[in-house]
Amino acid sequence: MDVDSLVAGARKGEARAVARLISLVEDDSRKNDTALREVSAALAPHTGHAHVVGITGSPGVGKSTSTSALVTALRAQDQRVGVLAVDPSSPFSGGALLGDRIRMQDHTTDSGVYIRSMASRGHLGGLAGAAPQALRVLDAAGCDVILVETVGVGQSEVEVAGLADTTLVLVAPGMGDGIQAAKAGILEIGDVFVVNKADRDGAQSTRRELRTMISMGERSEAAWTPPIVMTVASSGEGVEDVVAAVQQHREHLETSGELRRRRLARASREIEALALDALQRRMGDVRGDARLETLADDVLSGRSDPFTAADTLIDSL
Amino acid sequence: MDVDSLVAGARKGEARAVARLISLVEDDSRKNDTALREVSAALAPHTGHAHVVGITGSPGVGKSTSTSALVTALRAQDQRVGVLAVDPSSPFSGGALLGDRIRMQDHTTDSGVYIRSMASRGHLGGLAGAAPQALRVLDAAGCDVILVETVGVGQSEVEVAGLADTTLVLVAPGMGDGIQAAKAGILEIGDVFVVNKADRDGAQSTRRELRTMISMGERSEAAWTPPIVMTVASSGEGVEDVVAAVQQHREHLETSGELRRRRLARASREIEALALDALQRRMGDVRGDARLETLADDVLSGRSDPFTAADTLIDSL
Repeated sequence: MDVDSLVAGARKGEARAVARLISLVEDDSRKNDTALREVSAALAPHTGHAHVVGITGSPGVGKSTSTSALVTALRAQDQRVGVLAVDPSSPFSGGALLGDRIRMQDHTTDSGVYIRSMASRGHLGGLAGAAPQALRVLDAAGCDVILVETVGVGQSEVEVAGLADTTLVLVAPGMGDGIQAAKAGILEIGDVFVVNKADRDGAQSTRRELRTMISMGERSEAAWTPPIVMTVASSGEGVEDVVAAVQQHREHLETSGELRRRRLARASREIEALALDALQRRMGDVRGDARLETLADDVLSGRSDPFTAADTLIDSL
Repeated sequence: MDVDSLVAGARKGEARAVARLISLVEDDSRKNDTALREVSAALAPHTGHAHVVGITGSPGVGKSTSTSALVTALRAQDQRVGVLAVDPSSPFSGGALLGDRIRMQDHTTDSGVYIRSMASRGHLGGLAGAAPQALRVLDAAGCDVILVETVGVGQSEVEVAGLADTTLVLVAPGMGDGIQAAKAGILEIGDVFVVNKADRDGAQSTRRELRTMISMGERSEAAWTPPIVMTVASSGEGVEDVVAAVQQHREHLETSGELRRRRLARASREIEALALDALQRRMGDVRGDARLETLADDVLSGRSDPFTAADTLIDSL
């Protein structure tokens, strides 16, 4: 099936077409660069609708359960939902629902939900990686909201925030998560905070701790004070409040012009990352090439110096 | 003083001119890119004479003492010697003789020896870094042999081997260095092995262990079997044998054509690294540029996709 037919199918809500397109863009090896480019170009006119929500937090706070509960709440509002679960530690990829992601199976028969797991081999690959392209597929497929969840900790959490319009930061009582979040630099990137497992001891003190830390921290955007929502994701309690907070944040982004600023900045960074990636590839292609050998010989014989040779190499690319 | 005068001064053996040229090329910030390029171009016709000897080994094997002893032995043969001591952990730079490098002060009044310490902020910076440029200065200044020594362990050791014509691997008895060397991948890159502190217990068994490991390991060049030399660098014992082994290796490299092959490969990698470095810089320059903003806007509005925009960006560089 050609790319245009796949895109047409995805826009009509065909889950198989969506899955096939994501497979085409997430090909890690990028051997099939032509397909990737073709898909990206075909998607372009149909993107920009979806609101991308990043879900971050330390392991054990209930990210997976919260994501599933959010899907339920969003579906109750008849919103089309995409879920991209990125597991930097998993060697598996391609739509498999793994381990504690089992709760997601509630949604697998719902034609208004696309769920995709994606391995990322130790890192998300940044903006030149597969995740941004997969988001474009889900966007073009008509998702109103796309939830991006990472398994694991650290840098990938911050990377996910870089892909999102709204970033949810989840914490849980009694885990010292507030402190952990501050360490990971997550406080600065959170647009909405969620204290999950709010039926446990210490939920209120976690909330207070968070509130203090947020008020002390410097924020890039003074006009938005991140709300703190209390949830028990496993029972669905408070999850509608999270959906409402995300909606408020989206409205704030739109009226303040910040949505456009964020997306422009993100598109710029993505173009830069892809350009650098492409240049590195071209440089790799030149290895063993006669041109490079000639330049190296010029340097060796003293006819040229490495900087001049590098300039000549760049001009020849 | 202009660059041409500095190069002329360096070629006449003026230590100050050599020092000034190295300072110009090791400017980490690369703000003074023009000076760096000018120096590199002015040096080009005068390079290719020096034999570069990398000195690697775990901390405690006596690298600094061995380097100093090698300088003495090479000076006894009336060879001009350069020493580049790279300390990836040191915040200091620029010719200071630090800590256990004190022995080097024996040579500081000798006009036939240039000694330079160089900090590298955690890594050597590879072939686009300052070390390769500093080597070119010492080469053009008429050094017959340049000794490159790293302080510390790990990747930088392998990086140094990438700069050298001949790589010395130092071990000492009773440190399990043979095993350590194998782990670090240093066995494969050693052209001459030195068992230093050979007056200590276990020197012969270290030698046997090394011999076995070398014979088992795969070598890129079958025609050269690395000799193992026993030394007591602190007394100078055996150091002349090291000089002889290096000289034999150089002759082997020349007659086999391997010297030219190695240097061509190194020049190629250096050109590639500098080209990539330059492209990254240009990409950085474009940040905030109107061109990139226009491209990002095209992607946002769906008129273009990130890959096409990246191609356009590359073409505009």
